[in-house]
Amino acid sequence: MSKNRLEDFTDAVIAVLITIMVLNLRPPDGVHVSDLRPLVPKVSVYLLSFVFLGIYWNNHHHLLQVVDRISGGVLWANLHLLLWLSLTPVAAAWMGPHLHDSAPVGVYGVVLLGSGVAFTILTRALLAANGEGSRLAQALGNDRKGTLSIAAYVSAIAVSPFVPVLSVAVYVAVAAIWLIPDRRMERVIAVDVDELD
Amino acid sequence: MSKNRLEDFTDAVIAVLITIMVLNLRPPDGVHVSDLRPLVPKVSVYLLSFVFLGIYWNNHHHLLQVVDRISGGVLWANLHLLLWLSLTPVAAAWMGPHLHDSAPVGVYGVVLLGSGVAFTILTRALLAANGEGSRLAQALGNDRKGTLSIAAYVSAIAVSPFVPVLSVAVYVAVAAIWLIPDRRMERVIAVDVDELD
Amino acid sequence: MSKNRLEDFTDAVIAVLITIMVLNLRPPDGVHVSDLRPLVPKVSVYLLSFVFLGIYWNNHHHLLQVVDRISGGVLWANLHLLLWLSLTPVAAAWMGPHLHDSAPVGVYGVVLLGSGVAFTILTRALLAANGEGSRLAQALGNDRKGTLSIAAYVSAIAVSPFVPVLSVAVYVAVAAIWLIPDRRMERVIAVDVDELD
Amino acid sequence: MSKNRLEDFTDAVIAVLITIMVLNLRPPDGVHVSDLRPLVPKVSVYLLSFVFLGIYWNNHHHLLQVVDRISGGVLWANLHLLLWLSLTPVAAAWMGPHLHDSAPVGVYGVVLLGSGVAFTILTRALLAANGEGSRLAQALGNDRKGTLSIAAYVSAIAVSPFVPVLSVAVYVAVAAIWLIPDRRMERVIAVDVDELD
Repeated sequence: MSKNRLEDFTDAVIAVLITIMVLNLRPPDGVHVSDLRPLVPKVSVYLLSFVFLGIYWNNHHHLLQVVDRISGGVLWANLHLLLWLSLTPVAAAWMGPHLHDSAPVGVYGVVLLGSGVAFTILTRALLAANGEGSRLAQALGNDRKGTLSIAAYVSAIAVSPFVPVLSVAVYVAVAAIWLIPDRRMERVIAVDVDELD
Repeated sequence: MSKNRLEDFTDAVIAVLITIMVLNLRPPDGVHVSDLRPLVPKVSVYLLSFVFLGIYWNNHHHLLQVVDRISGGVLWANLHLLLWLSLTPVAAAWMGPHLHDSAPVGVYGVVLLGSGVAFTILTRALLAANGEGSRLAQALGNDRKGTLSIAAYVSAIAVSPFVPVLSVAVYVAVAAIWLIPDRRMERVIAVDVDELD
Repeated sequence: MSKNRLEDFTDAVIAVLITIMVLNLRPPDGVHVSDLRPLVPKVSVYLLSFVFLGIYWNNHHHLLQVVDRISGGVLWANLHLLLWLSLTPVAAAWMGPHLHDSAPVGVYGVVLLGSGVAFTILTRALLAANGEGSRLAQALGNDRKGTLSIAAYVSAIAVSPFVPVLSVAVYVAVAAIWLIPDRRMERVIAVDVDELD
Repeated sequence: MSKNRLEDFTDAVIAVLITIMVLNLRPPDGVHVSDLRPLVPKVSVYLLSFVFLGIYWNNHHHLLQVVDRISGGVLWANLHLLLWLSLTPVAAAWMGPHLHDSAPVGVYGVVLLGSGVAFTILTRALLAANGEGSRLAQALGNDRKGTLSIAAYVSAIAVSPFVPVLSVAVYVAVAAIWLIPDRRMERVIAVDVDELD
């Protein structure tokens, strides 16, 4: 039950964040298709941020499915993750029209990095609450994709003062590797479902 | 449980979208009933968009009720649907004061079409996860109303450069045929309820 | 389960509405307590609208607790209620600074009336789905407070062109009589709880 | 079930509040890191308010976990709490750029005080509904941290006309003592979990 409420709250926050970003997409003043052109970079950043928040929702969903126990520390680790995610709309609003400027692109990377680190901390807090022999520990194994993403964010931030567009490309690439669903979790869940049959 | 969380998240996103559209309805500056007149087209488009989002919520509700299994692909197909639905408020805000202009009317149709196609993709992903002999496969049968809507949206978009008002009429007509609840699903659900008695 | 999702969606919409109204409360430009004075009518209307939405949430909560079956018609009756409730923030934003003007006060009454009528329609749709001998039918009895409220709203709208401030007083009075919890439902629920013991 | 819906609604409202505050964080007009400097006090107040809302969510979560019965009075006590919490974003938006001005700092304290008192009232309403011998009564014991916080808020408000920055320091200190999870509840919950084993 405790776990349910954590999931519900996280879902609600991510749902609001994902839709609040739409408020940055103001309709153009003109009435021609060409008036949409200035919206293109904004819409692209919206898509990228939607995908990132979608990835976190998906991963959170998979992660919590193999969790049996929640602790006070987990609640705060989860709020810490939500705090970083909540900065996505502002960071996206700044980067949207400034894809070639160092600061907005770098700051967007910092928000991605913060979210990634916060997710890792949440994983650790859940491991501490559920123990070494838990389904979760078994499901996590070594978190290669997570470590890779964090390394990629750090590189992208480092590169942003010089070639911001390269940093943006890295963000897109990281999103792409995450769109592949997390097999590690699915394997354990599948086993559980089989055992139920 | 997995299914519950998918439903909760979808409900939360649609709930936020449906209410965020109200933010486009700014109160008039004046204090007379006549000052409400410029709001009439905006309110009409709000009503239409509310009904469309309501239809998707209803159909999603009916669809998920006959679903037993969720997969990673389903999660992304669902997020893809939410992405299209999330563009409804912007599209509505643009079309609101421009019911006689081709581009805003056509773009609104593109968002409706995208949502319709995304719903079909979600249906396919659910079918793939639940198998040919599932309750879902039995409930879906041939999706006449869905195919008809998509054809109607395509026609409305094609017509929008010439007679935008006709496109708007098509959108209203499609909304009207969906207001009739989806008997296909209700039939299967009714059988289940009877079996439980 | 069907019922749960209806409740979740309604909760989410009302939760967003109740908090979106806060967006109308912009902080003053000055930094003195006296700069808050122009906010007083706005905050008062916020309080009133918060209480009205709270009343609908409470009544919806009590109503659904004695409901066993949901139908397609109920889903739409519920969306119809949410549509009226969703107009509360705009109506409140208009009435906030114009408590002595006929149109904003009258329109606020129309939204209250629409919500009240929509709640009655929802009750009827639920009765039709649950039957004459259901717990719901037993719990509802004759809906005196509901009928009284609708009569009060009609009177307040009729009076608004002449003495708008009197209409506002009627709105406050109706809110006050609803703050008393709905004993009819609680009686039936209490019986159920006793039977479970 | 009744309890679940109360939790869901509270979660949704707090989730919206926590994310609506982000709307006050507008991206800077410039594209340099130095353009972020004026955002620093705003972001700090955002962090503080996020933590406060997070504390209420955590405490609400812990509190409801040891609750068995809900009453009509509890529903209203909960809405009363949500009303105060809903004023956090406006109060934060006012205090954000005015950390050295008496009125914004004092008003922020009033909102914190109102929330604190409302939480105490909710606790009382829950105690009345669950009885002296309930798990809740056992878990609460004497509420030292709650009483201390309310005393601190009163002092901070009293001090705000003279040294507003000291009041802000008190708010931060109170947030810090609450970041330590509520052991009183966890002890009782832990016992329950053990009994289930």
